[in-house]
This record gives sequence, structure tokens and C-alpha cells, in this order.
Amino acid sequence: MKFIIIGGDAAGMSAASRAKRNRPGMDVIVLEKTSDVSYSACGMPYNLADSGRSMDDLVVRQADVFRNRQKIDLRTGHYVEAIDITRKAVTGTTHDGDKFDLTYDKLLIATGASPVIPKLPGFDLPGVTSMKSLNDGRVIKQFITDNKVKNVVIIGMGYIALEMCEAFRALGIEVDMVKPRSVFIPWMNGKLASVVQSEVETNNVRVHLGHTIEKVVKAENGLKVICSDLDLSCRMVFVAVGVTPNSQLAENAGLELGPSGSISVDKTLCTSNPDIYAAGDCADAYHVVTGRKTWIPLALRANRGGWAVADNVTGTKAELQGVTGTAIFKVFDIQVARTGLGTDEAKELGFEPVEVVIESRSRAHAHPGSSSILVQMVGDRKSGRLIGVQMVGRESVAHRINAAAVALHAGMTVDEFAQTDLAYAPPFGPVWDPMLTAANQLLKQI
Amino acid sequence: MKFIIIGGDAAGMSAASRAKRNRPGMDVIVLEKTSDVSYSACGMPYNLADSGRSMDDLVVRQADVFRNRQKIDLRTGHYVEAIDITRKAVTGTTHDGDKFDLTYDKLLIATGASPVIPKLPGFDLPGVTSMKSLNDGRVIKQFITDNKVKNVVIIGMGYIALEMCEAFRALGIEVDMVKPRSVFIPWMNGKLASVVQSEVETNNVRVHLGHTIEKVVKAENGLKVICSDLDLSCRMVFVAVGVTPNSQLAENAGLELGPSGSISVDKTLCTSNPDIYAAGDCADAYHVVTGRKTWIPLALRANRGGWAVADNVTGTKAELQGVTGTAIFKVFDIQVARTGLGTDEAKELGFEPVEVVIESRSRAHAHPGSSSILVQMVGDRKSGRLIGVQMVGRESVAHRINAAAVALHAGMTVDEFAQTDLAYAPPFGPVWDPMLTAANQLLKQI
Repeated sequence: MKFIIIGGDAAGMSAASRAKRNRPGMDVIVLEKTSDVSYSACGMPYNLADSGRSMDDLVVRQADVFRNRQKIDLRTGHYVEAIDITRKAVTGTTHDGDKFDLTYDKLLIATGASPVIPKLPGFDLPGVTSMKSLNDGRVIKQFITDNKVKNVVIIGMGYIALEMCEAFRALGIEVDMVKPRSVFIPWMNGKLASVVQSEVETNNVRVHLGHTIEKVVKAENGLKVICSDLDLSCRMVFVAVGVTPNSQLAENAGLELGPSGSISVDKTLCTSNPDIYAAGDCADAYHVVTGRKTWIPLALRANRGGWAVADNVTGTKAELQGVTGTAIFKVFDIQVARTGLGTDEAKELGFEPVEVVIESRSRAHAHPGSSSILVQMVGDRKSGRLIGVQMVGRESVAHRINAAAVALHAGMTVDEFAQTDLAYAPPFGPVWDPMLTAANQLLKQI
Repeated sequence: MKFIIIGGDAAGMSAASRAKRNRPGMDVIVLEKTSDVSYSACGMPYNLADSGRSMDDLVVRQADVFRNRQKIDLRTGHYVEAIDITRKAVTGTTHDGDKFDLTYDKLLIATGASPVIPKLPGFDLPGVTSMKSLNDGRVIKQFITDNKVKNVVIIGMGYIALEMCEAFRALGIEVDMVKPRSVFIPWMNGKLASVVQSEVETNNVRVHLGHTIEKVVKAENGLKVICSDLDLSCRMVFVAVGVTPNSQLAENAGLELGPSGSISVDKTLCTSNPDIYAAGDCADAYHVVTGRKTWIPLALRANRGGWAVADNVTGTKAELQGVTGTAIFKVFDIQVARTGLGTDEAKELGFEPVEVVIESRSRAHAHPGSSSILVQMVGDRKSGRLIGVQMVGRESVAHRINAAAVALHAGMTVDEFAQTDLAYAPPFGPVWDPMLTAANQLLKQI
């Protein structure tokens, strides 16, 4: 049995390792186009912020460990160009220009996602950067040092843009953020989003909303981002306007696609071809709240997907129930968390959403060091179900969201969630956890 | 309609306030034996640790606010001595020695719990303290100042004992802890308990296990605690060997009792008498994991119970599903969390418990500031259900436990819990949350 995996990051290497653990005798080949495998991509902004650390610190396991200890046939510098589903083969070119043609019994596509780069003039200029691979991180870190970068323009205001703005500020770099839409974080409740925006601005990041980006041009000391009614000068541009699934190979092979052009998979992670699986940022998933397909590329799902594919390929049937879209990030001293659906999204998907926004505290009455926590909670008027929670605050927000995520998996009503026995001690929150306060308020509306 | 409430802390005042909100015209009388109502009892150890703060900071709402703004007939210094269920009346004596006799339509017993004081010689000596009421806190604080207390012996090693040992150390007081049993925290997995013990000892608290306490005697500069094979000298003794429900009134009135002598209530918080409710630390509850009665006196349940009683008394039927026994506390820099059943408890209750203990990290690979998290997870081999989680670590443990608590409410299997979409970002944990790692390991055993 020959199991070929295209892509050697979270999903690919998880699948490879687990397949070898499940069946040591199996022939497992990983084809990775870069020279890096198994690194913590999400750690790049934090690594960047610390000029004393090398990007290579983020490598979780070296390629040779996979090769020598786990006996995985890991081939870096192998770029797959096509999948031939009739011959059950993948073909491509190595870093050295050699062609390869390998047949498989089972194939996993774990090609990840790539940053969207606007098709506008000047986005190919040196100093216009984006970040996905570890090498992108190395390039940016080197560019900052070599060019003594003192100012950056970030295009986009998503998770990565925000994490990077904090990293740049930590290095003493001036930051302008710009995007065409007039809303700072569109998926977030406005009250909560304004807390995040204010934190960013307090840290001397200039936020420019509602400016269409027209082009990047060379300027005297670097670059200039030309937008509607705004020109921003800088030494470096960082583009983070979103990511897109790397599904071209799958599409060319005639596999079915899902939301946002991701590769459509069932609960066993199998594509429309019974011998081909897809996992990680290139694949779609079921949303447990809606029961429908969604594309939410995140690290846990990638790792879990890799494992499930390995189990299925080695004969232990594994099904993944789906995702709730739980995501957390930190920007300066603010933690942001979400799970499930926002109000607008819920409306579009046929729910009758009712929302509340409450303010609570991170510690008990009279306990020193307490700070504000804002919770937005959304329920469905028709079914009474909890369908989403968003939260911002200075402490304990990130881990609090997990309780709501589990409630979404369990299909709990707001009433059931309001009855849960959440933890209390004065240093960690009020007697009524902020999420319970939100649930109690939401019950009145619903 | 006359609604009488015995006891003016968490359950009692929650019930009174909500009853008046639900039905402003209702006659709501609260009989409180002390002069304090509505204070954060759990905050006392933290308040004690800060000599600059008054215990009165812990009062959440002053008695006059309840009286004047909420029109609650709040009578402090009213000690109820008997309930006459035939006449539907309560009788007692005021602080000034006056007798009272009041009839009710509905009655709530919210008398709380009291520290267990061993019936041994010397436990009535000045300087032998315990803590339940706000006044106990004031007395201890004053005693420490007046006597320039430099050393304390704590008898017991439960939550309160541990929180207090931290408070005493913060004041520069030497602490010896002593108890008869040879196990530090009996309900906790040994590996986890040893982390807590080591933290306590690192903070120069002397832990004496396996010494039966015989008596307290007066000594030259204070007191001496005489134990088997051990004499401990100190200026103050703090007793925290457990609490017992204040159910004497109920028992005398012929009401049914539950576990540990608590007052037995159904899901509407009604006792065996249809006109009498009980809530808070004096009442029992259903355990959602076992479906059986349990007595776990904690603040959230008290507040929630008060609300439910108010709803039931004012005509909106409310049922409480029960508790999972979620509890968290902090001792020095270690956070401790639990929910559900431990292995021994589960065995006694007829489960076939399987447990794992895993070590994980509080932050992602290569993220600075990461520390160890130990998770013990218990599943039931027969049903596959998750039945309990315990956790210790230096950060993010307290809020993480809530995800498991919600899973217990939902009756999830370990397999279902292992599939939950928990949050990930490098500053907040590994890709696989420590609880997911535990669930994955437990699945292999189960």
C-alpha cells in the first residue's frame, strides 16, 4: 500500500506520522515543495517581534526526524504539478529541475492556503511582503534588518494583520493599516470591534478605513501605497487581505470543490474521488451549527484532519463531526475570541438570530486587577439554540470561549447553557461567569 | 402573598431581589441573624492578604439599598429558632432579645453552611479561628493586627485552608498546616496533588500529614496545637477541616434531609414541604453526571438557586438541572481546577472509570513564557462517557475547565469531547488544547 501526501505542514505531517504509527510497514511518501516541514506557522508574528530569535525556532520537528526515526519517505523540494486520477499518479518537478511521476494507492492533498495578493500594479515590487510559509517569515525578518525598516503599511485588518501590527510595533516600527471597507472587523459586533480598534490606536497604529487600494509605487526611501484619498509612504508593505485554498491541483483533476473554492470532503475527509483525501487549509468542513459546508482554515482542524485521514487510509474508520469556527487571537493587551455564528451570518443562513451584548468583569467584586469583558451572545429564536459567542477583554477571554464551543457541539439551547456549572473563584471571575450573564440576558430576549 | 427568607447571603438575597423584580407588590421579608448581607464570602482570603483593605470592601450591596431601593423588608439581627409547618410560621429572637413570630405563605431556608469545629479540648480558646461570616473575617484581620501574629497553624488542607495559607504568607506570617490523613488532597490525582503540595512547600509553608490533632492548649506566647508525634506553637490557629450544612432548623421541622445532612430539595428547590424551599450551601442538588443527590456547597449554585426559588414562588416555574461539581482555586502561582468525578468517587458510584494523566503546555511550541499543565481525565468504560477532569498549572487552567463542565452537562462521550473545536493561538496554548490531548489519550485506553 502506497500512501502519497502532497504538502508537509500540519495536516500532511500529522497524517504521515499517524499512518506510520498505525501501520509501520506502510509506504508513506510526503511531497513538500519547500524545504520546511512541520513548523508552527501561527507563531511567526510572535517570532518576528523578537529579533533575538530565529524563525527556525518554530520548527517542531526536523525533516530528518521524520525520515530517520519515523521512516517517512519525506521529499522536500518536490512540487506536484498534476494528479492523474485515471493512472492514480502524481507528477511534478523537483527543486533541482528533475521530473517525477509517482503512483499512489491513496492520496492526501494537504496543500494548505495562500495569501491573496491583489492583482494591482506594484504588488510584485521588492518590499511588498505577505506571510504563509516559514520562508516568508525569514524573508520579512531579514528584510526588516537589512533595510532598517522604520515604517510599514499593512493592507488588511484580519487576524494576521492585527497580530503583525503588534509584532511590528514591538520592533519600534511605525504602522499604518489600510483597507477599502469602512468597518474595522466586519464579522464582529460593533461594540466589541471598537474595543479592539481603540487598543490598536492606543498603541499608535494608524487605522485607515474606507480607502480603496490602487497601487504600490517606488518612492524615494522605499514604497508608496496609493489609495483613494490617501497616499501612505513606507519601507515595507505587508499584505494580509485574506487567504485562499490551494485547490488548483484538485480542481484540475476534476475533484468537487466546496465553499470559497476549497476542496470538498465528506466526514471521513474523502474527496469526490474515493482514493483521494484532502485535509488542512485546502479542504472544507461541516459547520456543526448550520450542518452545512464551510471553509474555516485553522490549525487544529488541519492536525485533526491529518489524523482522521491516516486512520481511514490505514483501516480504522474515522469521521470528523465538523467545526464551530472557534478562533482566538491577541492584539496588544486585548484578547479576542469567537465561536459559532455572528448575527449577520446567522440571518443569511436562515436562523432568526437574537443577540445581546453585556459587559462583565474578569475578576470578582472587589478583587484587585479586574478588567472589563464584553460578551456578545447570539441565540436562535425559533429553536432556542445557542448559535454564537464573541468576546473581548484583557484577560481570561481566550480560554473562556471553549465552554461555548462545546455547547455548540452539543447543540445546547441558551437555556441549557445558562444552567451550566461554570467555575468560580474571586481571582478568575464573577460568581456568574460573563458568559452565563450573557445567557441569562439572552434568555429574556428569546 | 408573604415570602419569608431565612438567611441574607448569596441564595437569600438573590431570591429576595428577584422575587421583588418579578412581583414588586409581593411582601418579601428576609431574616438575617448577623448584621451583614450580600457580601463576597469567597473574597475573604484575598482581602485578608491585603492589610490596606477593609473587610467591608467585600459587601456587594448595603442593607439599606435592599430596603430603600428594592423595598425588601430586610431584618438583620433576626435569629430564627424554629419553623412551625402547621401554623406556617417562623419564630425566633432578635439581636436585642425581642421575640418574633411571623407567618409565611412561602418560606425559603437559606441558612448556608458552617465550618466544622472539632469537638476537642481548647478549640474554644481565644486565637482559635475559623471563617464563614464576614465578621469572622473582620475578627481574624483584627486579631492579626492586635497580636502582631507571626505564626499560624492551619488545621485542614482543603480549598479554604490553601487560600488562607497563601493569604497568611502574603502577610509575612509563618504557616504550619496539619491534618490527620496522610494524603495531601485526597480527591485529587496524586501526580496533580504533588504539584500543589510542592508549590505550597516552595512558599515556605510546612505541611504536616498524618498527625491526629488532640487538643489546643495555651502556651507562653500564644497557643500550642498538640498532635500525635507533633507539637506546633503559634499565635493563632485557623481551623478549616470542612463545612457542614446549617440544616438544624429544617431537620427540627421534620423536613427530609439529603447527603451530608443537607436539606433535600427537588429540581424546583422545593423541600419535602410544598411551601418551603431551600437554596444555597444548606441544600442538596442533583449531580448531572450521576443523576443522584450530592452536596457541593458553592457560590454559583447558591445564586442560581435563589433565583430559581424566586421564580417558583412568583409563579414562573424554574427547574435546575444540577451541578457538575466544578471548582477552581489558586494557591500561590498554581491554579487548580476540577469538574465531575474523580476516579475513586466514580468507582464507588458504579462507574467503570478509566483515567489518564497527561502533561502539556500552557502556550504553543516555542512561544515564550510557557509552563506545564497537568490534566487528569476520567471516562467510563461502559458508556464511553466523559465523567471528570482535574487540572493544575500556572496559567489558563481555571477557565479551561469550563469546556469540560459543559461537556458533562451535555453527557458527551470522550470521543465526542475529543472532536470539539477548542480555541488555538500561540500565546494561549498548543494546537491541541491540553484537554484534547488528554481526551485523545483516554480514547486509546477506553
